[in-house]
Amino acid sequence: MNNTTTISQREFEQRLEKFRANIKKEGLDACLVHATESDMAHVRYLSEYWPTFETAAVLMPAEGEPVLLVGPESDIYSSRRSFFKNIEKLIEYRESAEPDAPGMSFISFKDLFAKYIPGGVKKLGIVGWAITSLPVYTSLKEQMPGMELVRADMTLWPLRYVKSEGELACMRKAFEISELAVEAILNEIKPGMTELQVIGIAQREIYKHGGEYEGHALYCFCGEATNNAISRPTHNKIVANEVIQLNIGARVGGYSSSVGLPFSIGPLPERKRRLVEFGLEAHKKTIEMLRAGKPAGEVVDEYEAWVKERGFGRYLLYGPCHSIGMMEVERPWMESTSEYLLEENMTFQVDTFFYDNDFGLRWENGVIIKDGGVEMMSSKFMKMVEL
Amino acid sequence: MNNTTTISQREFEQRLEKFRANIKKEGLDACLVHATESDMAHVRYLSEYWPTFETAAVLMPAEGEPVLLVGPESDIYSSRRSFFKNIEKLIEYRESAEPDAPGMSFISFKDLFAKYIPGGVKKLGIVGWAITSLPVYTSLKEQMPGMELVRADMTLWPLRYVKSEGELACMRKAFEISELAVEAILNEIKPGMTELQVIGIAQREIYKHGGEYEGHALYCFCGEATNNAISRPTHNKIVANEVIQLNIGARVGGYSSSVGLPFSIGPLPERKRRLVEFGLEAHKKTIEMLRAGKPAGEVVDEYEAWVKERGFGRYLLYGPCHSIGMMEVERPWMESTSEYLLEENMTFQVDTFFYDNDFGLRWENGVIIKDGGVEMMSSKFMKMVEL
Repeated sequence: MNNTTTISQREFEQRLEKFRANIKKEGLDACLVHATESDMAHVRYLSEYWPTFETAAVLMPAEGEPVLLVGPESDIYSSRRSFFKNIEKLIEYRESAEPDAPGMSFISFKDLFAKYIPGGVKKLGIVGWAITSLPVYTSLKEQMPGMELVRADMTLWPLRYVKSEGELACMRKAFEISELAVEAILNEIKPGMTELQVIGIAQREIYKHGGEYEGHALYCFCGEATNNAISRPTHNKIVANEVIQLNIGARVGGYSSSVGLPFSIGPLPERKRRLVEFGLEAHKKTIEMLRAGKPAGEVVDEYEAWVKERGFGRYLLYGPCHSIGMMEVERPWMESTSEYLLEENMTFQVDTFFYDNDFGLRWENGVIIKDGGVEMMSSKFMKMVEL
Repeated sequence: MNNTTTISQREFEQRLEKFRANIKKEGLDACLVHATESDMAHVRYLSEYWPTFETAAVLMPAEGEPVLLVGPESDIYSSRRSFFKNIEKLIEYRESAEPDAPGMSFISFKDLFAKYIPGGVKKLGIVGWAITSLPVYTSLKEQMPGMELVRADMTLWPLRYVKSEGELACMRKAFEISELAVEAILNEIKPGMTELQVIGIAQREIYKHGGEYEGHALYCFCGEATNNAISRPTHNKIVANEVIQLNIGARVGGYSSSVGLPFSIGPLPERKRRLVEFGLEAHKKTIEMLRAGKPAGEVVDEYEAWVKERGFGRYLLYGPCHSIGMMEVERPWMESTSEYLLEENMTFQVDTFFYDNDFGLRWENGVIIKDGGVEMMSSKFMKMVEL
């Protein structure tokens, strides 16, 4: 296995064992777990493999060893990157431009199941349903006409909710690098730079300090663009006396992070400064509410009530936290509809977003849920910055 | 529309007009065109919109105006980024962690079709079949039980084969930035740096010189890892007297690029140097073969024959070209099975890959097909470099 891995071989084996047990418990003969370039989390969680250009899957039988499924060009890469002994090439996992790949040989789903699951597959679970592609789905339907296909995300997702010490170490390191990147930006940013040039500073620092990639598509917005809930940076220029929004996240060992802050070069107009300050107050309020045992939906309700009582309800889009792990946004969500209890070593982004017609702001920091409170994974930039 | 766009409004309108004509010609009532974070090309080609976190689609009726379909959080972003007047939110385009989004309202596919295609949809074409997700597919099947769903990639793909002057300008600029990034790496690389730290130099330069993103997940591999056809960089250290492989690509105005070269710090062992040199000779040979009117499959056959005659057939995996445009690898493929003729202003990556058990190399440069030959989009690093 490649030395970027900071998750131990033993931990991967435990993950596979737990996942296999869930598959059996659900009465499935196997699960097929999907990944793409932009959401590689489930497959990397099980195998350390991270596809590029092509997609990938893990076939996990209820009895027997897992198989990594890759596209035409990834056999050498996958054999080095993953510790899996069984790797197979399927045309369904080729890149989206769909080469014919003449002269190459592939295994069909039918032969794959016959080889690795000799007892047969009557009921197959799909994990990563939301990113499973039509070529995979239609091949399964055509080649296995009697097989029942069911959505089985919940055989794997809950294993990722509470983080291990190995996972927390990756995340702490990722947040540390993100803070170094934010610090470099605050030292170097000047009016007249483009939003994208600011992202270049962050990218430089992420790789310099040991990140393996960005943790999400990075944000730098200035002025009106700050009221986008999500967006992409542009060639627009940074100007003084306007809200500048950063959301900068490094990725380490597969784990994401993000540090978000609004700031300005020179003072902000009073109306904007007031909402930025209120946002920081609300951000700190959410952090106070978090502790093991707290019902997730209650955090949302209490946060929204707190904001509305103070007359800021009309600037509110959504709620104060989401889980973070391999993806910068992952399950479990924290919404008013959420019924689970917060558990020790769940990891959340406290994500405080307010917006008006002509600007917005987002404070964002990572926390680890503990008994009686949280451990902050980032907190250095939880302050008003006017350069 | 956002000022990162270098494709004119007029050109977008022409694209939509041609696409609509193809939809009518195929006897379809509409097409639904998909994009993800990692393959945004079709949707950006039509609308300039580039999703982040969420996915997206364009609904193009055979009669009437197109509609941009986005997820719960992208309404403000999409209204600024795209010039489309019609934008609708559908739950099916939410991010892969699938929030409930309580309190938000969404339109169903059924109501969407009723609103924008009052004549009804009996036959719907899917474009971007390979990246269409199961939530979209199953909602279409459930909400429109009588509707016929067909794969319709070829109503849109061929519009992207021959590039306009606007597209070529983006691509020339992207290749220019990629060469600046390679130059910076060659100036700064030292033994002991990690492969990922080298990527950081490239990222810094891409954004500094006006790139909007990487054109593909960037490569820097050293030693044995160079024989991966595709892979990802690691924390392994750069060492002297080994093949170091770079594939560095900037993205400009949506258009990708990549410059690939093998090089070394200090001299290479004779066996490795010989294959690297042969690769460069083969790379130049391919470029000589390219001109408007040439059958694409013939280029492959002539290239393979040329390599085999010289005794290097066993180092060959594939080759020697693939199209480039919005994606670093896109259609039309150039394979032995390819039957089309090269046309003026098609754009290809000449992509020369050879590999042995313990190393490999890839020369890669972009060309524009012209009468009687090519225009090179990059050629500065088509030379042996031993630092």
